[in-house]
Amino acid sequence: MINKKKEVTDKNKIEEILKKAIWCQLAMTDGDQPYVIPLNYGYRDNALYIHCAKKGMKLDIIRKNPKVAFNVTLDDEYLEGLLTMKFQSMNGTGKAYIIEDEEGKREALNCLTGHFGAEPVYHSAKSLNTIVMIKVEIVETTCKISYMD
Amino acid sequence: MINKKKEVTDKNKIEEILKKAIWCQLAMTDGDQPYVIPLNYGYRDNALYIHCAKKGMKLDIIRKNPKVAFNVTLDDEYLEGLLTMKFQSMNGTGKAYIIEDEEGKREALNCLTGHFGAEPVYHSAKSLNTIVMIKVEIVETTCKISYMD
Repeated sequence: MINKKKEVTDKNKIEEILKKAIWCQLAMTDGDQPYVIPLNYGYRDNALYIHCAKKGMKLDIIRKNPKVAFNVTLDDEYLEGLLTMKFQSMNGTGKAYIIEDEEGKREALNCLTGHFGAEPVYHSAKSLNTIVMIKVEIVETTCKISYMD
Repeated sequence: MINKKKEVTDKNKIEEILKKAIWCQLAMTDGDQPYVIPLNYGYRDNALYIHCAKKGMKLDIIRKNPKVAFNVTLDDEYLEGLLTMKFQSMNGTGKAYIIEDEEGKREALNCLTGHFGAEPVYHSAKSLNTIVMIKVEIVETTCKISYMD
Protein backbone atom coordinates (compact mmCIF):
# COMPACT_ATOMS: atom_id res chain seq x y z
CA MET A 1 0.00 0.00 0.00
CA ILE A 2 1.56 3.30 -1.09
CA ASN A 3 -0.43 5.62 1.16
CA LYS A 4 0.34 4.35 4.63
CA LYS A 5 -1.90 7.00 6.22
CA LYS A 6 -4.94 5.11 4.98
CA GLU A 7 -3.73 1.69 6.05
CA VAL A 8 -5.49 -0.14 8.87
CA THR A 9 -3.60 -2.97 10.51
CA ASP A 10 -5.86 -3.53 13.53
CA LYS A 11 -7.09 -7.13 13.15
CA ASN A 12 -10.26 -6.36 15.12
CA LYS A 13 -11.20 -3.57 12.72
CA ILE A 14 -10.57 -5.84 9.74
CA GLU A 15 -12.72 -8.54 11.30
CA GLU A 16 -15.43 -5.96 12.02
CA ILE A 17 -15.62 -5.14 8.29
CA LEU A 18 -15.82 -8.84 7.42
CA LYS A 19 -18.60 -9.36 9.95
CA LYS A 20 -20.57 -6.29 8.91
CA ALA A 21 -20.52 -6.77 5.14
CA ILE A 22 -22.62 -9.49 3.53
CA TRP A 23 -21.03 -9.66 0.13
CA CYS A 24 -17.57 -9.66 -1.31
CA GLN A 25 -15.93 -9.64 -4.68
CA LEU A 26 -14.17 -12.94 -5.23
CA ALA A 27 -11.36 -13.08 -7.77
CA MET A 28 -10.03 -16.28 -9.29
CA THR A 29 -7.52 -17.06 -11.99
CA ASP A 30 -8.10 -19.35 -14.94
CA GLY A 31 -4.67 -19.85 -16.49
CA ASP A 32 -3.55 -16.24 -16.92
CA GLN A 33 -7.10 -14.82 -17.10
CA PRO A 34 -8.54 -13.26 -13.95
CA TYR A 35 -12.27 -13.52 -13.18
CA VAL A 36 -14.17 -11.62 -10.49
CA ILE A 37 -17.75 -11.91 -9.23
CA PRO A 38 -19.81 -10.54 -6.36
CA LEU A 39 -20.94 -13.17 -3.86
CA ASN A 40 -22.66 -13.30 -0.53
CA TYR A 41 -20.60 -14.91 2.18
CA GLY A 42 -20.58 -16.03 5.78
CA TYR A 43 -17.53 -15.41 7.94
CA ARG A 44 -16.18 -17.51 10.79
CA ASP A 45 -12.73 -18.26 12.24
CA ASN A 46 -10.63 -16.66 9.51
CA ALA A 47 -12.65 -18.18 6.67
CA LEU A 48 -15.38 -17.13 4.25
CA TYR A 49 -18.15 -19.57 3.34
CA ILE A 50 -19.72 -19.28 -0.10
CA HIS A 51 -22.61 -21.07 -1.72
CA CYS A 52 -22.67 -22.13 -5.33
CA ALA A 53 -24.45 -24.33 -7.80
CA LYS A 54 -23.18 -27.85 -8.39
CA LYS A 55 -21.53 -26.84 -11.63
CA GLY A 56 -20.29 -23.62 -13.10
CA MET A 57 -17.30 -21.43 -13.82
CA LYS A 58 -16.37 -20.81 -10.17
CA LEU A 59 -16.01 -24.51 -9.43
CA ASP A 60 -14.22 -25.23 -12.69
CA ILE A 61 -11.64 -22.55 -11.97
CA ILE A 62 -11.20 -23.33 -8.27
CA ARG A 63 -10.62 -27.01 -9.03
CA LYS A 64 -7.71 -26.02 -11.27
CA ASN A 65 -6.37 -23.19 -9.10
CA PRO A 66 -7.59 -22.76 -5.52
CA LYS A 67 -5.77 -19.45 -4.98
CA VAL A 68 -8.29 -16.63 -4.68
CA ALA A 69 -8.41 -12.98 -3.71
CA PHE A 70 -11.31 -10.99 -2.38
CA ASN A 71 -12.35 -7.46 -1.59
CA VAL A 72 -15.01 -6.23 0.77
CA THR A 73 -15.95 -2.57 0.44
CA LEU A 74 -18.32 -0.88 2.85
CA ASP A 75 -19.85 2.53 3.35
CA ASP A 76 -18.75 3.84 -0.02
CA GLU A 77 -19.89 7.38 -0.64
CA TYR A 78 -19.02 9.84 -3.36
CA LEU A 79 -17.82 13.14 -1.91
CA GLU A 80 -19.61 15.65 -4.08
CA GLY A 81 -17.29 18.11 -5.79
CA LEU A 82 -14.13 16.50 -4.42
CA LEU A 83 -13.67 13.96 -7.22
CA THR A 84 -13.06 11.26 -4.68
CA MET A 85 -14.81 8.85 -2.34
CA LYS A 86 -15.05 7.74 1.25
CA PHE A 87 -14.96 4.03 1.89
CA GLN A 88 -13.77 1.17 4.04
CA SER A 89 -12.13 -1.54 2.05
CA MET A 90 -10.36 -4.72 2.91
CA ASN A 91 -8.44 -6.97 0.57
CA GLY A 92 -7.51 -10.54 1.14
CA THR A 93 -5.94 -13.53 -0.44
CA GLY A 94 -7.06 -17.02 0.38
CA LYS A 95 -7.21 -20.66 -0.56
CA ALA A 96 -10.52 -22.17 -1.64
CA TYR A 97 -11.65 -25.65 -0.61
CA ILE A 98 -14.74 -27.37 -1.94
CA ILE A 99 -16.59 -28.82 1.04
CA GLU A 100 -17.56 -32.38 0.19
CA ASP A 101 -19.00 -33.88 3.37
CA GLU A 102 -22.61 -33.48 4.45
CA GLU A 103 -21.95 -32.14 7.95
CA GLY A 104 -19.33 -29.71 6.64
CA LYS A 105 -21.80 -28.40 4.06
CA ARG A 106 -24.52 -28.06 6.70
CA GLU A 107 -22.28 -26.00 8.98
CA ALA A 108 -21.03 -23.86 6.10
CA LEU A 109 -24.57 -23.14 4.90
CA ASN A 110 -25.66 -22.20 8.42
CA CYS A 111 -22.63 -19.91 8.69
CA LEU A 112 -23.69 -18.19 5.45
CA THR A 113 -27.35 -17.77 6.42
CA GLY A 114 -26.29 -16.84 9.97
CA HIS A 115 -24.36 -13.93 8.46
CA PHE A 116 -27.76 -12.60 7.34
CA GLY A 117 -29.12 -13.07 10.84
CA ALA A 118 -30.91 -16.39 10.32
CA GLU A 119 -30.98 -19.07 13.02
CA PRO A 120 -29.24 -22.36 12.14
CA VAL A 121 -31.53 -25.06 10.76
CA TYR A 122 -31.06 -28.76 10.02
CA HIS A 123 -30.67 -28.96 6.25
CA SER A 124 -31.57 -32.40 4.91
CA ALA A 125 -29.01 -34.49 3.05
CA LYS A 126 -31.27 -34.23 -0.01
CA SER A 127 -31.24 -30.42 0.00
CA LEU A 128 -27.51 -30.30 0.70
CA ASN A 129 -26.95 -32.58 -2.25
CA THR A 130 -28.23 -29.89 -4.62
CA ILE A 131 -25.59 -27.31 -3.66
CA VAL A 132 -21.87 -26.88 -3.22
CA MET A 133 -20.27 -24.91 -0.39
CA ILE A 134 -16.82 -23.39 -0.68
CA LYS A 135 -14.56 -22.47 2.20
CA VAL A 136 -12.06 -19.69 1.57
CA GLU A 137 -9.33 -19.89 4.16
CA ILE A 138 -7.96 -16.39 4.54
CA VAL A 139 -4.20 -16.18 4.04
CA GLU A 140 -3.48 -12.45 4.13
CA THR A 141 -5.45 -9.26 4.58
CA THR A 142 -4.83 -5.57 4.10
CA CYS A 143 -7.25 -2.78 4.89
CA LYS A 144 -7.65 0.83 3.84
CA ILE A 145 -10.08 3.40 5.12
CA SER A 146 -10.96 6.75 3.59
CA TYR A 147 -10.42 7.63 -0.02
CA MET A 148 -10.39 5.40 -3.09
CA ASP A 149 -7.39 5.90 -5.38
CA MET B 1 -24.32 -17.95 -16.43
CA ILE B 2 -26.46 -20.75 -15.03
CA ASN B 3 -29.63 -18.77 -14.37
CA LYS B 4 -30.52 -17.38 -17.76
CA LYS B 5 -33.59 -15.60 -16.37
CA LYS B 6 -31.30 -13.07 -14.69
CA GLU B 7 -29.08 -12.52 -17.70
CA VAL B 8 -29.13 -9.18 -19.50
CA THR B 9 -27.72 -9.09 -23.00
CA ASP B 10 -28.94 -5.64 -24.07
CA LYS B 11 -25.72 -3.71 -24.81
CA ASN B 12 -27.44 -0.39 -24.02
CA LYS B 13 -28.39 -1.60 -20.55
CA ILE B 14 -24.84 -2.84 -19.92
CA GLU B 15 -23.46 0.52 -21.04
CA GLU B 16 -25.98 2.30 -18.80
CA ILE B 17 -24.57 0.46 -15.77
CA LEU B 18 -21.01 1.35 -16.78
CA LYS B 19 -21.97 5.00 -17.21
CA LYS B 20 -23.92 5.21 -13.95
CA ALA B 21 -21.40 3.54 -11.61
CA ILE B 22 -18.21 5.37 -10.63
CA TRP B 23 -16.18 2.51 -9.28
CA CYS B 24 -15.41 -1.02 -10.22
CA GLN B 25 -13.56 -3.97 -8.83
CA LEU B 26 -10.52 -4.66 -11.00
CA ALA B 27 -9.00 -8.13 -10.90
CA MET B 28 -5.52 -8.96 -12.13
CA THR B 29 -3.38 -12.07 -12.06
CA ASP B 30 0.18 -12.27 -10.81
CA GLY B 31 1.43 -15.68 -11.90
CA ASP B 32 -1.33 -17.92 -10.53
CA GLN B 33 -2.37 -15.51 -7.75
CA PRO B 34 -5.42 -13.30 -8.36
CA TYR B 35 -5.60 -9.79 -6.93
CA VAL B 36 -8.66 -7.54 -6.79
CA ILE B 37 -9.09 -3.90 -5.78
CA PRO B 38 -11.83 -1.27 -5.93
CA LEU B 39 -11.04 1.64 -8.24
CA ASN B 40 -12.79 4.66 -9.61
CA TYR B 41 -13.00 4.74 -13.38
CA GLY B 42 -14.08 6.75 -16.36
CA TYR B 43 -15.84 5.06 -19.27
CA ARG B 44 -15.71 5.91 -22.95
CA ASP B 45 -15.94 3.97 -26.21
CA ASN B 46 -15.76 0.46 -24.78
CA ALA B 47 -12.88 1.28 -22.43
CA LEU B 48 -12.38 2.08 -18.76
CA TYR B 49 -9.81 4.69 -17.72
CA ILE B 50 -8.12 4.28 -14.38
CA HIS B 51 -5.70 6.47 -12.48
CA CYS B 52 -2.79 5.16 -10.48
CA ALA B 53 0.44 6.14 -8.81
CA LYS B 54 3.68 5.90 -10.78
CA LYS B 55 4.64 2.70 -9.03
CA GLY B 56 2.79 0.00 -7.22
CA MET B 57 1.38 -3.47 -7.38
CA LYS B 58 -1.21 -2.73 -10.10
CA LEU B 59 1.43 -1.54 -12.54
CA ASP B 60 3.85 -4.33 -11.66
CA ILE B 61 1.20 -6.96 -12.33
CA ILE B 62 -0.24 -5.34 -15.47
CA ARG B 63 3.22 -5.05 -17.02
CA LYS B 64 3.63 -8.80 -16.66
CA ASN B 65 0.06 -9.78 -17.55
CA PRO B 66 -2.30 -7.21 -19.10
CA LYS B 67 -5.36 -9.49 -18.93
CA VAL B 68 -7.84 -8.12 -16.41
CA ALA B 69 -11.40 -8.71 -15.28
CA PHE B 70 -13.78 -6.29 -13.63
CA ASN B 71 -17.13 -6.17 -11.94
CA VAL B 72 -19.45 -3.23 -11.49
CA THR B 73 -22.30 -3.74 -9.02
CA LEU B 74 -25.03 -1.16 -8.54
CA ASP B 75 -28.12 -0.72 -6.43
CA ASP B 76 -27.31 -3.61 -4.13
CA GLU B 77 -29.90 -4.06 -1.41
CA TYR B 78 -30.41 -6.81 1.10
CA LEU B 79 -33.96 -8.14 0.99
CA GLU B 80 -34.79 -8.46 4.66
CA GLY B 81 -35.91 -11.94 5.65
CA LEU B 82 -35.36 -13.41 2.19
CA LEU B 83 -31.69 -14.33 2.68
CA THR B 84 -30.88 -12.79 -0.66
CA MET B 85 -30.18 -9.50 -2.40
CA LYS B 86 -31.30 -7.29 -5.24
CA PHE B 87 -28.57 -5.92 -7.47
CA GLN B 88 -27.44 -5.02 -10.94
CA SER B 89 -24.08 -6.46 -11.77
CA MET B 90 -21.94 -6.55 -14.84
CA ASN B 91 -18.79 -8.53 -15.36
CA GLY B 92 -16.15 -7.93 -17.95
CA THR B 93 -12.81 -9.04 -19.16
CA GLY B 94 -10.37 -6.66 -20.72
CA LYS B 95 -6.82 -5.85 -21.72
CA ALA B 96 -4.93 -3.15 -19.84
CA TYR B 97 -2.64 -0.65 -21.54
CA ILE B 98 -0.44 1.81 -19.71
CA ILE B 99 -0.89 5.18 -21.39
CA GLU B 100 2.54 6.68 -21.94
CA ASP B 101 2.00 9.83 -24.02
CA GLU B 102 1.11 13.21 -22.53
CA GLU B 103 -1.97 13.87 -24.65
CA GLY B 104 -3.28 10.36 -24.09
CA LYS B 105 -2.90 10.78 -20.34
CA ARG B 106 -4.63 14.16 -20.43
CA GLU B 107 -7.64 12.74 -22.29
CA ALA B 108 -7.79 9.70 -20.02
CA LEU B 109 -7.68 11.84 -16.88
CA ASN B 110 -10.42 14.09 -18.22
CA CYS B 111 -12.49 11.00 -19.02
CA LEU B 112 -12.08 9.83 -15.41
CA THR B 113 -12.95 13.19 -13.83
CA GLY B 114 -15.72 13.68 -16.40
CA HIS B 115 -17.30 10.50 -15.08
CA PHE B 116 -17.74 12.38 -11.79
CA GLY B 117 -19.30 15.28 -13.63
CA ALA B 118 -16.24 17.55 -13.85
CA GLU B 119 -15.56 19.69 -16.91
CA PRO B 120 -12.36 18.86 -18.84
CA VAL B 121 -9.32 20.94 -17.88
CA TYR B 122 -5.86 21.36 -19.38
CA HIS B 123 -3.57 19.32 -17.11
CA SER B 124 0.05 20.50 -17.30
CA ALA B 125 2.81 18.17 -18.46
CA LYS B 126 4.32 18.51 -14.98
CA SER B 127 1.18 17.32 -13.21
CA LEU B 128 0.63 14.51 -15.71
CA ASN B 129 4.18 13.37 -15.08
CA THR B 130 3.29 12.49 -11.49
CA ILE B 131 0.58 9.96 -12.42
CA VAL B 132 -0.04 6.96 -14.61
CA MET B 133 -3.26 6.34 -16.50
CA ILE B 134 -4.39 2.88 -17.53
CA LYS B 135 -6.80 2.09 -20.33
CA VAL B 136 -8.77 -1.14 -19.99
CA GLU B 137 -10.10 -2.11 -23.39
CA ILE B 138 -13.22 -4.16 -22.77
CA VAL B 139 -13.14 -7.56 -24.44
CA GLU B 140 -16.29 -9.27 -23.16
CA THR B 141 -19.17 -8.41 -20.87
CA THR B 142 -21.96 -10.29 -19.14
CA CYS B 143 -24.68 -8.79 -17.04
CA LYS B 144 -27.08 -10.06 -14.40
CA ILE B 145 -29.92 -8.24 -12.72
CA SER B 146 -31.83 -9.25 -9.59
CA TYR B 147 -30.54 -11.68 -7.02
CA MET B 148 -26.99 -12.47 -5.97
CA ASP B 149 -26.16 -16.16 -5.80
